[in-house]
Amino acid sequence: MNLDPLPSWNDGQAKQSIVAFVARVTKKGSPDFVPEPERIATFDNDGTLWAEQPMYTQFAFALDRVMALAPQHPEWQTTEPFASLLKGDLQGALAGGEKSILQVVMATHSGMATHEFNAIVIDWIATARHPTTKRPYTEMIYQPMLELVAYLRANGFKTFVVSGGGIEFMRPWTERVYGIPPEQVVGSSIKTKFAMQDGKPVLMRLAEANFIDDGEGKPVGINEHIGRRPIAAFGNSDGDLQMLQWTAAGDGARFCLYVHHTDAAREWAYDKASSVGQLDKGLVEAAARGWTVVDMKQDWKVIYPPASK
Amino acid sequence: MNLDPLPSWNDGQAKQSIVAFVARVTKKGSPDFVPEPERIATFDNDGTLWAEQPMYTQFAFALDRVMALAPQHPEWQTTEPFASLLKGDLQGALAGGEKSILQVVMATHSGMATHEFNAIVIDWIATARHPTTKRPYTEMIYQPMLELVAYLRANGFKTFVVSGGGIEFMRPWTERVYGIPPEQVVGSSIKTKFAMQDGKPVLMRLAEANFIDDGEGKPVGINEHIGRRPIAAFGNSDGDLQMLQWTAAGDGARFCLYVHHTDAAREWAYDKASSVGQLDKGLVEAAARGWTVVDMKQDWKVIYPPASK
Repeated sequence: MNLDPLPSWNDGQAKQSIVAFVARVTKKGSPDFVPEPERIATFDNDGTLWAEQPMYTQFAFALDRVMALAPQHPEWQTTEPFASLLKGDLQGALAGGEKSILQVVMATHSGMATHEFNAIVIDWIATARHPTTKRPYTEMIYQPMLELVAYLRANGFKTFVVSGGGIEFMRPWTERVYGIPPEQVVGSSIKTKFAMQDGKPVLMRLAEANFIDDGEGKPVGINEHIGRRPIAAFGNSDGDLQMLQWTAAGDGARFCLYVHHTDAAREWAYDKASSVGQLDKGLVEAAARGWTVVDMKQDWKVIYPPASK
Repeated sequence: MNLDPLPSWNDGQAKQSIVAFVARVTKKGSPDFVPEPERIATFDNDGTLWAEQPMYTQFAFALDRVMALAPQHPEWQTTEPFASLLKGDLQGALAGGEKSILQVVMATHSGMATHEFNAIVIDWIATARHPTTKRPYTEMIYQPMLELVAYLRANGFKTFVVSGGGIEFMRPWTERVYGIPPEQVVGSSIKTKFAMQDGKPVLMRLAEANFIDDGEGKPVGINEHIGRRPIAAFGNSDGDLQMLQWTAAGDGARFCLYVHHTDAAREWAYDKASSVGQLDKGLVEAAARGWTVVDMKQDWKVIYPPASK
């Protein structure tokens, strides 16, 4: 029996490069052999493992939380960016740029204990629906990438998510959805503080940034959480470029892959000019260095897994 | 065959409590059964897995680095705390308290790339000797604790170091010495910054504190790195108390253990009054809550593993 471990991949250069790399590093006695503990693979999340259009899922979560919390915040009716959001005017709300986004994130992600935030995420991810497909967000994941993650794990790799998204927004569901446990998720975070509440210890989430796991932050986050350099890295945007550079700069066999969103019919088509998941410098560097670039339209037989019941 | 997995433990209450806990959480169908992915065990390092007297090993490292770096720093001859250190006057050097210690740490731990620091640690740990026993520091480890770490792993636990020590000071050797890989080491850290050097990405170590993984910081570090609450935690000082409290506060079966340094003949005897590894509040809480307290003199047949050749 020799079942194809990557059945959703068309038999092109991308698939062949993956299979050839795994064969090289797992073959005992080969000059490129890598011992199992060093087989670290890191995956970006938004746009690499799941869809990020028309807006980052976590931002959709934050907007839903603003609506849910509004009754407890009468002052939001007259304070931007909340007033515009509550009127359904997203563009007006975001007129303030990054500062507005940060206000929305902090208002919805801090001020509670970690176990409370965990429960909020679990409830939301179970019930929220993607605005265009109406599917749960945890079904807006890429079937070919699920197969790739599983294929690497079956070959002795330890797989990590390394995302610009919030670490505590991802951990409640990555194990169920990707088979990646919480301790193998790296992401952005706000500060937390130990406190005693009624004699029980809790960790309170503070309205203060702790770490931004994007761009130059990704190698920093990888070093802090994993402490080893990956031998394979997977991304889809310029925010992943330094992770791929950091991975490529190690000794021995290395594998870097960009998912290029080229399928306007089945998913979305965007790169250089996109405000979400911009891919510009990354494409240039991938071409110059011979990294694998997945053409979603050509390389993937399907995009999403079949709908659950 | 039913070999004792903890041969260096005398058959007393401490050993019995460990074995009973492992039996409870690993027996399928038992009400206390814990699935493997949730079997997280966290170990303090200094004083719990290896000796911390007469001074923290990492501080001995820092002092050796001051000596090694002195020729490149003529200004140290006239600047405290370095001037006193170079004269061999440790007490004088530490007269400045925490500020002096921080100066020594930053002067010896920052200003280089992570791979350079890694090489410095590997070289030092291979050659340095403990001042009183003259053994390598990696042999100043507790044989009974090594057996305990291995016993938990053999029972499906994932074992982590959670130490106030520097994360990048520990990672170069924890896998070889404890069987704990870099990605399962949590510790204190300084900030790092991504930079390009001759077209190659590096992470530069900055003279700026990032995280202090001690006391109330331990649950914060555990949450950030592991994202799950441990079901078992092992420490030896008041700096581990919040980690044990955080562990104990979870639902279901929990195990908390303090190593009490009671053996002045074979190791050191210290607790309430010690400046290194002070154990005062922890002993009170352990007694009140029925946590296991290891009496090193009574409970351990041997302290260290046999000397290597």
